[in-house]
Amino acid sequence: MFLSKLDSLSTAVGLVNDNQKYTDVEEISIYDCHKRVLAEDIKAYHNSPPFDKSAMDGFALKGENTFGASQSAPKELKIIDAIGAGDFSTKTVGENEAIVIATGAPIPEGANAVIMKEYTTTEGDDLTIYSQVTPGENVSPKAEDIRKGETILSKNTFIRYQEMGLIASAGYDKVKVFKKPRVKLIITGNELVEPTKEEIDNAKIINSNQFTINAMIEDSGAICDIDHAGDSFDEVKEAILQASKEYDVIMTTGGTAISKGDVVLDVVNDLGEILFHGVAMRPGKPAGAGIINDKMIFTFSGQPVAAMSQFDIFARKYLFEMQGRAFDFHIVKRESQLKIPSQLGRTDFIRAVTDDDYAKHVLNRGSGIIRSMVEANSYIIIDENDEGYQKGDIVDVVMFDSLLW
Amino acid sequence: MFLSKLDSLSTAVGLVNDNQKYTDVEEISIYDCHKRVLAEDIKAYHNSPPFDKSAMDGFALKGENTFGASQSAPKELKIIDAIGAGDFSTKTVGENEAIVIATGAPIPEGANAVIMKEYTTTEGDDLTIYSQVTPGENVSPKAEDIRKGETILSKNTFIRYQEMGLIASAGYDKVKVFKKPRVKLIITGNELVEPTKEEIDNAKIINSNQFTINAMIEDSGAICDIDHAGDSFDEVKEAILQASKEYDVIMTTGGTAISKGDVVLDVVNDLGEILFHGVAMRPGKPAGAGIINDKMIFTFSGQPVAAMSQFDIFARKYLFEMQGRAFDFHIVKRESQLKIPSQLGRTDFIRAVTDDDYAKHVLNRGSGIIRSMVEANSYIIIDENDEGYQKGDIVDVVMFDSLLW
Repeated sequence: MFLSKLDSLSTAVGLVNDNQKYTDVEEISIYDCHKRVLAEDIKAYHNSPPFDKSAMDGFALKGENTFGASQSAPKELKIIDAIGAGDFSTKTVGENEAIVIATGAPIPEGANAVIMKEYTTTEGDDLTIYSQVTPGENVSPKAEDIRKGETILSKNTFIRYQEMGLIASAGYDKVKVFKKPRVKLIITGNELVEPTKEEIDNAKIINSNQFTINAMIEDSGAICDIDHAGDSFDEVKEAILQASKEYDVIMTTGGTAISKGDVVLDVVNDLGEILFHGVAMRPGKPAGAGIINDKMIFTFSGQPVAAMSQFDIFARKYLFEMQGRAFDFHIVKRESQLKIPSQLGRTDFIRAVTDDDYAKHVLNRGSGIIRSMVEANSYIIIDENDEGYQKGDIVDVVMFDSLLW
Repeated sequence: MFLSKLDSLSTAVGLVNDNQKYTDVEEISIYDCHKRVLAEDIKAYHNSPPFDKSAMDGFALKGENTFGASQSAPKELKIIDAIGAGDFSTKTVGENEAIVIATGAPIPEGANAVIMKEYTTTEGDDLTIYSQVTPGENVSPKAEDIRKGETILSKNTFIRYQEMGLIASAGYDKVKVFKKPRVKLIITGNELVEPTKEEIDNAKIINSNQFTINAMIEDSGAICDIDHAGDSFDEVKEAILQASKEYDVIMTTGGTAISKGDVVLDVVNDLGEILFHGVAMRPGKPAGAGIINDKMIFTFSGQPVAAMSQFDIFARKYLFEMQGRAFDFHIVKRESQLKIPSQLGRTDFIRAVTDDDYAKHVLNRGSGIIRSMVEANSYIIIDENDEGYQKGDIVDVVMFDSLLW
């Protein structure tokens, strides 16, 4: 493939969006639903709390019976029962009566408030109170968190730990979520070897993409299997064809440029359809994507930083949305601490160190310099219509942390 | 235990810090090191790139031989060899000679630049170039990313995907990291039942803490096993004693107040030492911590929101630091959209919805209202020395996302 005409970034992103696929739905135990995406509305099977509940340890009573009580003018009541958490009383609280109650226990019939233990003293069944409480005080009313029958979470909600608590309280022991996408990551390149402390053969290079891209895929809520193919057309074709039958998404690294070792795009063209190849952006210009057997294939560069950026720009959103979770870059505005040159017609993703006020781009930023990603915590994004920025200009920034699943 | 005197939040946090423990070191495969913390400095075993490397597909040549070449005045060179990725040439590039080169391949002897294929045409061994390149152009110099022998990452670095790439390139197939802390989460309370769609018995409540706190523990890089104990002293004591022998950290929910069902702090007192019990904060006042068999125990409330906040305030930092990762709240400043009353002498953690400019607290925020955590994405923190804020005041905010591992 000859990488002659570059697509604009927005064209390339649009082509990916137009081909968005979604995973199926599965029902899983609530124990396993952390960081999954709801594939159903959650309707409450219960009120929560299921009854008027004591919010304190103390004494359930009629608030009216405490009016006027103080340190200097205590009031006397009679204790008629005691309720631990998980227990309930069959007795009814009458005038000037009280029932010992634990946090979480149901307010007994006749009572409407709880006085905290620290404002009381007891002697046998005699309760002395030194403070007043208003009716309703220290009572969590029935259904104040969840009302039975109500829709409390909707489909496509990302399940954090707090949502897990709400789903459990609503009565769900299982929950429908979108399946994790299954991704085959195919590392191409005859020059690649595994990490080793030993001397490395001439012309060989340690393969780092298999670690970084694999981790990025898993960090996007997906499951990744890694395969290796050399640089030959047949080898790459066989690996991609197989993956297109068994996986939801294919990603490749290497072999995206134009010389004799670069076959990935030829294979995509042979097996399916190329959506784009070559994008007016830096790093990552040789980025490509296609469709094979109705499956999306992303073809990333072999250059480590280019591959990571291409993942962030094209694949992350695709994997998120595939699982039902809406995703877009969260752009924040910061003051640039340095002058940043850029080229009209090209979108730049410049690695930068950004704090709450400033962004300062990393200077040494070739597409092979992994260290530029290690030193950075963010991208400064320079639109294709901008020719760069002066020191002190306000720039668009995406924090790496905001990209995580 | 009688919760009479409250400690200030800073006193309580100080007591936890004074008793910080650390996990041991283990050596693991680089495949498994994502989101772990380095327990060794990483010194490079190799240069990266290991040789002057072509950054493009094209032709390796002497830059000087291209000077003056243009579309209207092309120059002619002779192709003497071809190098694919992973390959190298034994030939030396002489005057007006060129070697076909793939991205990633070593620059051959005699050459100092690469001209991109798109600025050339070929016919057999004859190469015509239509553009000039400066010496060094399209060459990634040897060691530009990593210099052999250099310390490229230091102990206590959190390993993101980009650090994985750097560690691999440095030649490490295994890496020393801090072990994940093993946490036993003991849920106490006779009133608790598992999530169910069926009618729930009188006075029983669905247990949600086992899901939320378990997920928070795992989200802090730790491993969690869950146990259940009722409300009896002997039952809780047996569970805690056993956990203190087998786990690095113990956490409990429920049984932290003062009535007859509340035994957890009595057990801590019996088996070891209470560090604090009762903190001037909201939610989460009954928070406690102690030491049993040299292991930290955190005693959280049974109230779901109180338990989550107590985890965020005390346990998260403890688990992070235990694994060698420094952690503190990342405070950002926002304009409050509402008036927020608070009490002098108490630190408030108020659930809020915060964007890049404003914070608006969730109004319904009892310590049992899980929905207040679900609606929120942040805490507004009100210091014990502040009496609250007016609408339009600038307040301290911690985003929930900034708390994640």
